[in-house]
Amino acid sequence: MRIAIVGCGQLSRMMALAGIPLGLEFSFIRDDETQTRDCVQGLGIIENAPAKITETNSYPAEAIANLYQALGEPDCISVEKEQVDITLLQALAIFCPIYPSVDAIKACQHRGAEKQLLTSLAIPTSPYLYNCSAKEAVERLGYPVMAKSCTEGYDGKNQWVIKNADDAIQFDTLQLTDYIIEGFIEFDKEISLVSARSQKGQIAHYSLTDNHHEKGMLIHSISPAVNISDALQAQAQRYMESLLNELDYVGILAIEFFVVGDSLMVNELAPRVHNSGHWTQLGSITCQFENHVRAIAGLSLGSTKQISKTGMFNLIGTERPPFEALTENSKLYWYNKTSKAKRKVGHINFIAANQALLEQQITQLKMRWKANN
Amino acid sequence: MRIAIVGCGQLSRMMALAGIPLGLEFSFIRDDETQTRDCVQGLGIIENAPAKITETNSYPAEAIANLYQALGEPDCISVEKEQVDITLLQALAIFCPIYPSVDAIKACQHRGAEKQLLTSLAIPTSPYLYNCSAKEAVERLGYPVMAKSCTEGYDGKNQWVIKNADDAIQFDTLQLTDYIIEGFIEFDKEISLVSARSQKGQIAHYSLTDNHHEKGMLIHSISPAVNISDALQAQAQRYMESLLNELDYVGILAIEFFVVGDSLMVNELAPRVHNSGHWTQLGSITCQFENHVRAIAGLSLGSTKQISKTGMFNLIGTERPPFEALTENSKLYWYNKTSKAKRKVGHINFIAANQALLEQQITQLKMRWKANN
Repeated sequence: MRIAIVGCGQLSRMMALAGIPLGLEFSFIRDDETQTRDCVQGLGIIENAPAKITETNSYPAEAIANLYQALGEPDCISVEKEQVDITLLQALAIFCPIYPSVDAIKACQHRGAEKQLLTSLAIPTSPYLYNCSAKEAVERLGYPVMAKSCTEGYDGKNQWVIKNADDAIQFDTLQLTDYIIEGFIEFDKEISLVSARSQKGQIAHYSLTDNHHEKGMLIHSISPAVNISDALQAQAQRYMESLLNELDYVGILAIEFFVVGDSLMVNELAPRVHNSGHWTQLGSITCQFENHVRAIAGLSLGSTKQISKTGMFNLIGTERPPFEALTENSKLYWYNKTSKAKRKVGHINFIAANQALLEQQITQLKMRWKANN
Repeated sequence: MRIAIVGCGQLSRMMALAGIPLGLEFSFIRDDETQTRDCVQGLGIIENAPAKITETNSYPAEAIANLYQALGEPDCISVEKEQVDITLLQALAIFCPIYPSVDAIKACQHRGAEKQLLTSLAIPTSPYLYNCSAKEAVERLGYPVMAKSCTEGYDGKNQWVIKNADDAIQFDTLQLTDYIIEGFIEFDKEISLVSARSQKGQIAHYSLTDNHHEKGMLIHSISPAVNISDALQAQAQRYMESLLNELDYVGILAIEFFVVGDSLMVNELAPRVHNSGHWTQLGSITCQFENHVRAIAGLSLGSTKQISKTGMFNLIGTERPPFEALTENSKLYWYNKTSKAKRKVGHINFIAANQALLEQQITQLKMRWKANN
């Protein structure tokens, strides 16, 4: 059985590394000229996406057929990112199933569409306005507000915090199109839920995870999230199940939540394996990458049972694999990327008997990372 | 960092799959013309060993230098089997370290040398005679005895059970050289210990494992081994440590033991990752493949802590990956080999909350396997 993935980054790498032991074969579609092949080099066929016909915004049928052949006629196709060209997926869908479906990816690709979906399922999310001037938005939502590109923003890029009238004026002069402005949520913390759904509709949830960001980038995660009631975990799972079933979703879906007192509010959806689920490679019986692959290959899901309190620390802009950080209870995952500023080049997972020891490791890793970068 | 491994089989495959996430690169030396490249295809450089000069039983220096270059100038070289040409390893040792050392591999490669090593360390093993006629052997050791080629026997091949005078006469007519005849041990069961030693001499042991053979081939393992006292586990570890330190061993070493009442007797040594340690891929924080790679790469060892009772079932002669055998608590490891009779083509690891459930799974797998093969 062969699986093709759109994208050649670390998520594709880790999906392949989880699926190869099962006897599955992989191919990768390089759909972005700036993307290097380093992460997936040697793990399967790598093919460039064909050029698009600009006039019709479509792909030549023959080029897509050739691409499908060159990929080794995969049994299904998945993605490692939501910002993938829907037209490309639709063209490929003639040859084999796309998991998650094109509609599911589309729904998560656009912040406006995502907000509508959440609202239609009565899943709480922050108040927002679409393509509204900052001036008007702050009148209706108050200060501060956050403007976000509907399709471009991740890791803090293409996002603007508007704290005062000056910020609002400055934002409006950008004359953007296709963005939302969200009301500010005074949240206690950010957590995420990563879950898998199989082709037969079986659902498995990982534990809720605490996520700590700096300058919009995820720095470290801890799972299970601390001080989360059973009721809140159940609530998160209900929202997740509602979305998975509504979208007839196959694969891993991640939801980022804000915790606001005793309730949850969805920040955003990611229709793919997710950085906040990397800890599952060490801390769970089956990692998110294997469960994604099992789901899209039509297999039954593996147990998401947690084996220990687990932490994940992102390696950002690190030059070389930090082998010295390897301890008895930690694992290194290196992506084979050329290092550059703000680029995630690997991560470290670690387990500990208790929360204090886990946090001690985070502190040590952070200090070492800051000293070296 | 690059690691080269002599051999292109499933053990090389699994070492590479454990090391690639760490950012390590792999090369493989195909030293046997009958060996396919399927298991390691795509996981690194594959190079054939050069032809030997028959007259001098040596390798041309230039060919070895070319091989080392073609392998990508590895930082160290390891093996996936003990029956590797020592001359080849010695020639390669000029360029980089060999782990475990050539001497350690040599000691385990010959049953006679192995028996001598064990005896010198006062580690119990069965009584034996080297290159002695069966007629004389049975006079001294009684019936039955087991004749074994010193260098060729594994998975029950090149081994002869001598139960009576006819068997003895028949064995002597084979006119073999380089074999031992071992006295029969009335053992209760066969267990194994798999342990790792780092370059700095750090040692980590996995739990003792029960091994169940049919016709000389390992069919399934269960770990931890049942009904083993703490004293016996400690005894096994003392024998292991004695061997590891004596050999200044780096990497994974496996010892197969016979349990005889309250004591242990060494059956044989395997200076490599071992089939009876495959369960560690699911049942332990760090699997034997990762610990072998960490040891030979000069890194610290990972925890060998067990996370659950675990079983391993070998897939022998199975045509296709048995995806239907995948359950919530089981994992499939497929080797990408063309199936043929008596060929190990994969294995299934599974965990269970208790011994009864573990054995139930073994029974089910065996029945299914027998029905299909």
